[in-house]
Amino acid sequence: MKQSPSSLAQQLAQGTVDVIPVAELERKLSSGRKLVIKLGADPTSPDLHLGHAVVLRKLREFQDLGHEVVFVIGDFTTRIGDPTGRSKTRPPLSDEEITRNSATYLDQVGKILDMKRVTVRYNSEWLDALSSRDWIKLCAKFTLARLIEREDFAQRLAQHISIGFHELLYPILQAYDSVALRADVELGGTDQTFNLLAGRFLQEHMQQEPQVIMTIPLLEGLSGGTKMSKSYGNSIGLSEPADQAFGKLMSISDDLMWHYRSILLQESAETIANYQQGIAQGTLHPMTLKKNMAHDIVSTFWGAPAAQLAQHQFEELFQKRHYEEAPSVTLPETLENPAWIVDLVKILGQCSSSSEARRLIEAGAVMIDDNKITDVKAYITTQTGMIIKIGKHKMYKIT
Amino acid sequence: MKQSPSSLAQQLAQGTVDVIPVAELERKLSSGRKLVIKLGADPTSPDLHLGHAVVLRKLREFQDLGHEVVFVIGDFTTRIGDPTGRSKTRPPLSDEEITRNSATYLDQVGKILDMKRVTVRYNSEWLDALSSRDWIKLCAKFTLARLIEREDFAQRLAQHISIGFHELLYPILQAYDSVALRADVELGGTDQTFNLLAGRFLQEHMQQEPQVIMTIPLLEGLSGGTKMSKSYGNSIGLSEPADQAFGKLMSISDDLMWHYRSILLQESAETIANYQQGIAQGTLHPMTLKKNMAHDIVSTFWGAPAAQLAQHQFEELFQKRHYEEAPSVTLPETLENPAWIVDLVKILGQCSSSSEARRLIEAGAVMIDDNKITDVKAYITTQTGMIIKIGKHKMYKIT
Repeated sequence: MKQSPSSLAQQLAQGTVDVIPVAELERKLSSGRKLVIKLGADPTSPDLHLGHAVVLRKLREFQDLGHEVVFVIGDFTTRIGDPTGRSKTRPPLSDEEITRNSATYLDQVGKILDMKRVTVRYNSEWLDALSSRDWIKLCAKFTLARLIEREDFAQRLAQHISIGFHELLYPILQAYDSVALRADVELGGTDQTFNLLAGRFLQEHMQQEPQVIMTIPLLEGLSGGTKMSKSYGNSIGLSEPADQAFGKLMSISDDLMWHYRSILLQESAETIANYQQGIAQGTLHPMTLKKNMAHDIVSTFWGAPAAQLAQHQFEELFQKRHYEEAPSVTLPETLENPAWIVDLVKILGQCSSSSEARRLIEAGAVMIDDNKITDVKAYITTQTGMIIKIGKHKMYKIT
Repeated sequence: MKQSPSSLAQQLAQGTVDVIPVAELERKLSSGRKLVIKLGADPTSPDLHLGHAVVLRKLREFQDLGHEVVFVIGDFTTRIGDPTGRSKTRPPLSDEEITRNSATYLDQVGKILDMKRVTVRYNSEWLDALSSRDWIKLCAKFTLARLIEREDFAQRLAQHISIGFHELLYPILQAYDSVALRADVELGGTDQTFNLLAGRFLQEHMQQEPQVIMTIPLLEGLSGGTKMSKSYGNSIGLSEPADQAFGKLMSISDDLMWHYRSILLQESAETIANYQQGIAQGTLHPMTLKKNMAHDIVSTFWGAPAAQLAQHQFEELFQKRHYEEAPSVTLPETLENPAWIVDLVKILGQCSSSSEARRLIEAGAVMIDDNKITDVKAYITTQTGMIIKIGKHKMYKIT
């Protein structure tokens, strides 16, 4: 049986923070038209993470209803650097970086969207075509007061933190993307609300039907508090191996688990309250719930077989301590034998610096064949079959 | 004998409010190069007035020293509308208005500059050529904080008066004009100080020798207080007939006379103090000083013969009351005879509305053949030789 537009709208609103306005979404859905659903992304970093997955899954829902998903790559706007949620001006990227990042982006988007039915557009297409007069006319649609209402601009102004004048162009250009595409719906994180509304505003002032905006909750990073972001080092990348994602999910706090269950698994407040009651009454164990969560999240975004394998490996390694199941690594030939412990940890632990490796060693997070190594001056004679554990959930077998 | 650069700089600084920095002007003058001296004007109104004459005369000094005067017509920027010193957004002009106004501008500039040696440039030439990427790069040179330091922007922000976002582009574009021209010196009124400094700033950030800026005092309008501006109805246009200019100059207050003598005749504070002493001691009469002033100003900007004639006519009409010297006017055929007094005054007095004409009549400012007419319902049988006086210094003879 065909769903009514109002029940469809309700279903699509699930898992969002705001739909502005719901009545327009219903009206658009009832028009019978194939709607244009827009998501913009700046290729500032080559990696998408679980935080992006939430909004991509919402796009997938629209795609499965037969609407046209347009994925806008902000290759032009990336030359400005969006300061959203940041307190300083982001440096612009080179054309080469933009091209490289865009390609890996689309690979990762393909994990969630059916790429055969996705329209990919680059905003340089219409933004490079703007003449000087167009720029004036576009800027004239906005007032300064309106633009500096944006929370991060207002904060930076109040704190006397410099705002590059070009940064103020960002919401205008993102809004113009919606005009160029005649977007019906635009999705984005809650930190994008201002920019999404600017699109609605500009479409109305350029005689178009304004887009409906749908905001998606921001996923907190692995250590909680701040939003997930590759540059904060608190993310799970969509291109990471499933077992690594599983290990990272197992490392989050019990508190954060409720947030992940709510956002990534879309579990209701009622379900979560039941779990919490079960733990309080001793009928449920937090570790079991976390393993279920890790399994279900990996299953959703990496697929069921990958999730099963990752869970099995996790249990063998970290619960049953069957170290022979550890993933094998071959050490690079450039590493000397005996190897300096700091070099070894830096390579295996994917540390960004020697001092990070040093900190891990000194904190007692490094074990070699069950012996904790805390001396940063140690030299290790590496050999085949040696098991090296770094932190709680990384373990390697030397081949 | 050739003047030293420092005495030349001193001479050029006469009659300005600020030269920033004087040392750089001296250095540029001593380079032996032909300097590029820039003045920008937006063709927002077709009429130049005495206020503009002050800065044009300063340009003429540079011209007479052999430097290249570049008169920039802001045909592009006029599409934005500069809000300088105004509390509301100025509406943009059409291309036709801009072309028409530019032509009459140059006619009037020719009264003071030697047009054969003036380079006229339209800023659309380089501003229309900017690509979208150029715009971003240009905007990125400025911070928001720097732009909203401009006094009128700061005031409007504080008073919650709307600022179109495009208006903030104005100082950036005026600054870019200086880059495009490689200007050595830019002149402007004191209300242009911010924009002129923006030019210095941008040149420095685009690896050019920054321009020296010279600010010129703003001339107050005929009724004092606010600056002279056609749109305030308090101006003497450079294209007005000399006798009309003379009459208007005779109508200013004694206080304003010192301001006009200082700015338009560049008389020193000492000279002016002497005059004031003479009046206090009864050895000089204000009317004589004002007539000298009117003569000298008209002589400077309209030429000596025109000044002599205007003074003669003024004395005959308003002092000796030889009304037969009044300028002849032919009434339009559309005016009925007898004519309604309001229509008659509206036409002869160049009133903008019937109510303005009505006010003049009611105030007793209208005389016909020595009879004061105060009844706004009166009908006048017009005839050849009839003398009609409106206000203090307008008189006409009907032909």
